[in-house]
Amino acid sequence: MILDDYRYDGKGTFSFSDHPTNVKIPKEEREHYEALTQENILRMADLQDRLYADGREGVVIMFQALDAAGKDSTIKRVMTGLNPQGVTVHSFKQPTSAERAHDYLWRAILHLPERGHIGLFNRSYYEDVLVVRVHDLRKGYKMPKRTLDMTDEEFFKIRYREIRDFERYLWENGYRLLKVMLNVGKDEQRRRFLERIDNPAKNWKFSSSDLKERALWSEYMDAFTEAIEQTSTPEAPWYVIPADQKWYARYLVSEAVVNVLEACDPQYPTIPAEQHAELEECRAQLTKK
Amino acid sequence: MILDDYRYDGKGTFSFSDHPTNVKIPKEEREHYEALTQENILRMADLQDRLYADGREGVVIMFQALDAAGKDSTIKRVMTGLNPQGVTVHSFKQPTSAERAHDYLWRAILHLPERGHIGLFNRSYYEDVLVVRVHDLRKGYKMPKRTLDMTDEEFFKIRYREIRDFERYLWENGYRLLKVMLNVGKDEQRRRFLERIDNPAKNWKFSSSDLKERALWSEYMDAFTEAIEQTSTPEAPWYVIPADQKWYARYLVSEAVVNVLEACDPQYPTIPAEQHAELEECRAQLTKK
Repeated sequence: MILDDYRYDGKGTFSFSDHPTNVKIPKEEREHYEALTQENILRMADLQDRLYADGREGVVIMFQALDAAGKDSTIKRVMTGLNPQGVTVHSFKQPTSAERAHDYLWRAILHLPERGHIGLFNRSYYEDVLVVRVHDLRKGYKMPKRTLDMTDEEFFKIRYREIRDFERYLWENGYRLLKVMLNVGKDEQRRRFLERIDNPAKNWKFSSSDLKERALWSEYMDAFTEAIEQTSTPEAPWYVIPADQKWYARYLVSEAVVNVLEACDPQYPTIPAEQHAELEECRAQLTKK
Repeated sequence: MILDDYRYDGKGTFSFSDHPTNVKIPKEEREHYEALTQENILRMADLQDRLYADGREGVVIMFQALDAAGKDSTIKRVMTGLNPQGVTVHSFKQPTSAERAHDYLWRAILHLPERGHIGLFNRSYYEDVLVVRVHDLRKGYKMPKRTLDMTDEEFFKIRYREIRDFERYLWENGYRLLKVMLNVGKDEQRRRFLERIDNPAKNWKFSSSDLKERALWSEYMDAFTEAIEQTSTPEAPWYVIPADQKWYARYLVSEAVVNVLEACDPQYPTIPAEQHAELEECRAQLTKK
């Protein structure tokens, strides 16, 4: 299956050199993939309805990426067919003071969906091994000496293990995770930034600080490489999706979402035989003239 | 130190036969221990003030016990000297439907205090390996097949490991746990139940269902034994406190609370040298006629 090309479950080493940002699907195929995406969206809506009724599994879909990779637009385009009753979206911004005063998984857990629901994370606790690592933010947190005195290597090694433990815990407690990295190229990011500057309707999406982050491109890619390598497992693999062609990225994401929902195998609950008699009784009352 | 007699950190096997419910302190010593408890409460208030100002560590104090062991009265008597700004108490009741639709640690994490604060848990996520085990409640939860199909042994073995992982995670992220089991004797429980029936002001604390739980005494002790054995570590040991003599139990708990707060070694933050000049400037402005 095509999606498997972009899946990494921890076997072997991970390198972005094996994961192009553009797989150059011919333009003529765009309509074909957009049609497939629409089919997937319909399929998702049906599966979500069953998931909600079933209630045995919860699904968390998280998006990580550098700026302008298409997180917001992917969520908008791929998830818009879902019934909002049963879907929550949480955007991980700069942590609030209450969030900084807690462990780093706290804010993610607060927004964990109920089983039967789908939770979308726009960014996630992976920020705590990405931006926190690149900008050395951990030194700015109030933490006890036993943590502060660690080297970066020790500190992040522990974080990766904690994340693996946490994701295994979620799996064992009725959740499935879909971890998506939208892998945009540096040239394509430049093009999209320029568009945000040129187009007044997109100005609000751009900030001069975005260029400072762009200057740290290779540091971010190193942090992503290590995070993906250290936290991919068969139960919680990473999907590294080529994001330069948005319509193809959306198709791949829609495939991945359908897959994870199908894996839940959600079923409308059936009622026990003795309740059928009760239903018939109710029918009789309702149809009585 | 006397408290060490009641501490179990996972070394060797755990058995309640090594942990009496009554260590028969002579009645004449009651006043002496009550005075020591009062001293500890003053000490706690001072340490809490520093912990709050310091903000580098959070403390979670959890109480588990059979009915009428003194959880509520211990919290009332030992913790009343603390500044409520900086203390939260959460009682773990029967899970709500939202709680049942999440993983079992979710509701505990929701109520995790900020670092710098003290969180008191009246019962805790240990209910999920105690009452859930004794009453086989896990079958009533909507969970996927991979979990439902497990034997009890597999299922709880995983839960103990998850709890160990979680508590290690808390330790690594600036929290200290104090886990207290108030170990009451079956005869003493009977005496206290009768008192709740005899005394109109205590009637509300008693329910006939309490007797059903009492009938499961040995099942509960087995569940406690395994939970304590499986989840005690040097960083998160259990304190099994003899609870038949309430005033002695309170003394021991006050000792344990002082110990954990002292271990945090909380310090009032000092300001950097350059800020001293600023303070002097402010003093000058304030004292200017």
